Amino acid sequence: MSKYVLEDFTEGRVFDLAPYEVDRQEVIAFAEAYDPQPFHLDEEAGKASMLGGLSASGWHVCGMMMRMICDAYLLDSTSQGTGSVDFVDWKVPVRPGDTLTGSSTVLSARVSSKKPFLGLVNLRTEVRNQRGETAAVCEHLLLCLTRQARDEEVMA
Amino acid sequence: MSKYVLEDFTEGRVFDLAPYEVDRQEVIAFAEAYDPQPFHLDEEAGKASMLGGLSASGWHVCGMMMRMICDAYLLDSTSQGTGSVDFVDWKVPVRPGDTLTGSSTVLSARVSSKKPFLGLVNLRTEVRNQRGETAAVCEHLLLCLTRQARDEEVMA
Repeated sequence: MSKYVLEDFTEGRVFDLAPYEVDRQEVIAFAEAYDPQPFHLDEEAGKASMLGGLSASGWHVCGMMMRMICDAYLLDSTSQGTGSVDFVDWKVPVRPGDTLTGSSTVLSARVSSKKPFLGLVNLRTEVRNQRGETAAVCEHLLLCLTRQARDEEVMA
Repeated sequence: MSKYVLEDFTEGRVFDLAPYEVDRQEVIAFAEAYDPQPFHLDEEAGKASMLGGLSASGWHVCGMMMRMICDAYLLDSTSQGTGSVDFVDWKVPVRPGDTLTGSSTVLSARVSSKKPFLGLVNLRTEVRNQRGETAAVCEHLLLCLTRQARDEEVMA
């Protein structure tokens, strides 16, 4: 019964994210699979680019952010998935050796008008590097159960 | 000299994306690394969820979309990376066995006011499955060189 439901996502509540160490081999492997631009694959190409050095794909940064979110609260929630992201801003490059931390703040939360068992939670997640620079900001939607829906599920 | 520059991204131009086959092991491996929610890991958990079956993480869908974009035009461009995504809408679940196709349409393109060598291109990318359903829509920014900047770089 410990799983977060809609009523736990009160406006302004902050969830701290656990640190994530950015690994060089992981950065390159992700880029090889999904975003093989030279500055995501190679140190020299990165230095020659506007990014100033080998940098993780922005989508890889989103993946790391998602893992941090999962470990901080999402896997302990009644998450039913999502449907959208309002925006992602990548502020500074994320590089091998960086340690990311961050937080998610509840912007708003309400019951779905179409599906009364479902909560719609808007969150703002910020990811920072070890120098305290904001590396990425994302506003995103979480779908989860209401307390009543969870309790009925547990009883069922 | 074949690399796309700002002037090639004319408003309304459409780039077709090459097909991407969604692989079960890849769906699960991505989820294990970045989004280990049960409905991204396990067929039965997927069936029991609102997603109705094992479904790729939304961020994995973005990764697949990015690879389709890379192969269609980005790796043949003077891409300098990006800074933001305006939004992502995930419309229907993406499942193992799906074949994704899609297109990117140029919404607008202009020279950066701060960096006159740099072009800012706004694109709308839609990804469809083999039934013609729109699986994901994303509006995103591409930074690339102007023709003059590319030609000067080639001459340098």
